[in-house]
Amino acid sequence: MRDTKEGRVPMVVIKRLPKYYRYLGELVEHKVERVSSQTLADMMGISASQLRQDLNHFGEFGQQGYGYRVEDLYQEIGRIIGLENEYNMVIVGAGNLGQALANYPNFSKRGFLLKGVFDINPKLIGLKLRDNEIMDIDHLEQFIQKENIAIGIITVPKEAAQEVADIMVRAGIKAIWNFAPVDIKVPPEIVLENEHLADRLMVISFRLKELGFEED
Amino acid sequence: MRDTKEGRVPMVVIKRLPKYYRYLGELVEHKVERVSSQTLADMMGISASQLRQDLNHFGEFGQQGYGYRVEDLYQEIGRIIGLENEYNMVIVGAGNLGQALANYPNFSKRGFLLKGVFDINPKLIGLKLRDNEIMDIDHLEQFIQKENIAIGIITVPKEAAQEVADIMVRAGIKAIWNFAPVDIKVPPEIVLENEHLADRLMVISFRLKELGFEED
Repeated sequence: MRDTKEGRVPMVVIKRLPKYYRYLGELVEHKVERVSSQTLADMMGISASQLRQDLNHFGEFGQQGYGYRVEDLYQEIGRIIGLENEYNMVIVGAGNLGQALANYPNFSKRGFLLKGVFDINPKLIGLKLRDNEIMDIDHLEQFIQKENIAIGIITVPKEAAQEVADIMVRAGIKAIWNFAPVDIKVPPEIVLENEHLADRLMVISFRLKELGFEED
Repeated sequence: MRDTKEGRVPMVVIKRLPKYYRYLGELVEHKVERVSSQTLADMMGISASQLRQDLNHFGEFGQQGYGYRVEDLYQEIGRIIGLENEYNMVIVGAGNLGQALANYPNFSKRGFLLKGVFDINPKLIGLKLRDNEIMDIDHLEQFIQKENIAIGIITVPKEAAQEVADIMVRAGIKAIWNFAPVDIKVPPEIVLENEHLADRLMVISFRLKELGFEED
């Protein structure tokens, strides 16, 4: 649980906000004007009462019997998420994963702007990645300060992840998205999201097991 | 909510199982024999009562006042997740993301075995990726059947994702992990996990906003 201006919002609700935003965005694209809590809940795979509870954390939405105005709710959830802001980002680690993220099309659309890609490997430094030239990690600290970088993405091998995080923190980064399969330590005022890709396979495993998966 | 042998387990609890498994694995590595629900809950960032509720979905663990036996709980959660099984996987899309996942070290350790990588690009077909030669997507359907592939990972551009999913389903795949930024449709008996990487940035955005992030 965490404190917000809107009250204490459980992490599980926070994690559903992007999904609301995505589904509402689809409805907006299809020019749907109103949606009932039941329909939206069905799209989300949750119950209508869960949906109403979720949205109640953020104020009053919708009208009894009339459902939600799609465009308004979409804009409002975007505002709650903070998408009116733009965030400058760096990626450290220009291997396959770093390159994949650098080329991921949906980040800049949401206001997450990649400003630099860094690596330690002389063979990669100087290469162009879309609009970004891969820079020497020696310049990372200064770059974060000068370019007002808010979010640092770590895609280096796990042995180097903590060191990269330390540089980012020293330079005044606000948030770290860590893909290295290791838990890094940062001060409590830094937003840290660890991406554990193997976790997703474990969820798949659990769900397969529920369905009675047996090896042949 | 879903039915299991152990009763109906909410998705939010299922999604926490890999995290329990990871933290308990660390305690096992450090040769910790017992852990209190409070300590484990603190590691997890949840309340002790939440933790006890979570584990109650799966039976009786721990003894009042004695905490949990780390090794037993670790093994048991691994069993609940289904990690005693091995799963054969293919990756379709041998671009940066597909290559990054093919090289990700923590999958095979958990029994998720990469058996083949496929692409449509003649320049990539035939290249070696670790132990895997990139194959022509024309051979995908037959390969899934012959090699008893359970999990298909989709890392193609979004325009091609549904077509790849259709081939996988036709070939009898059990689960799909989709990284293409588009919602694909599969029959209800197929386990589908969509990876929306931009969602994680939105969670970061929300958390930064809570902390009073303002652009300079």
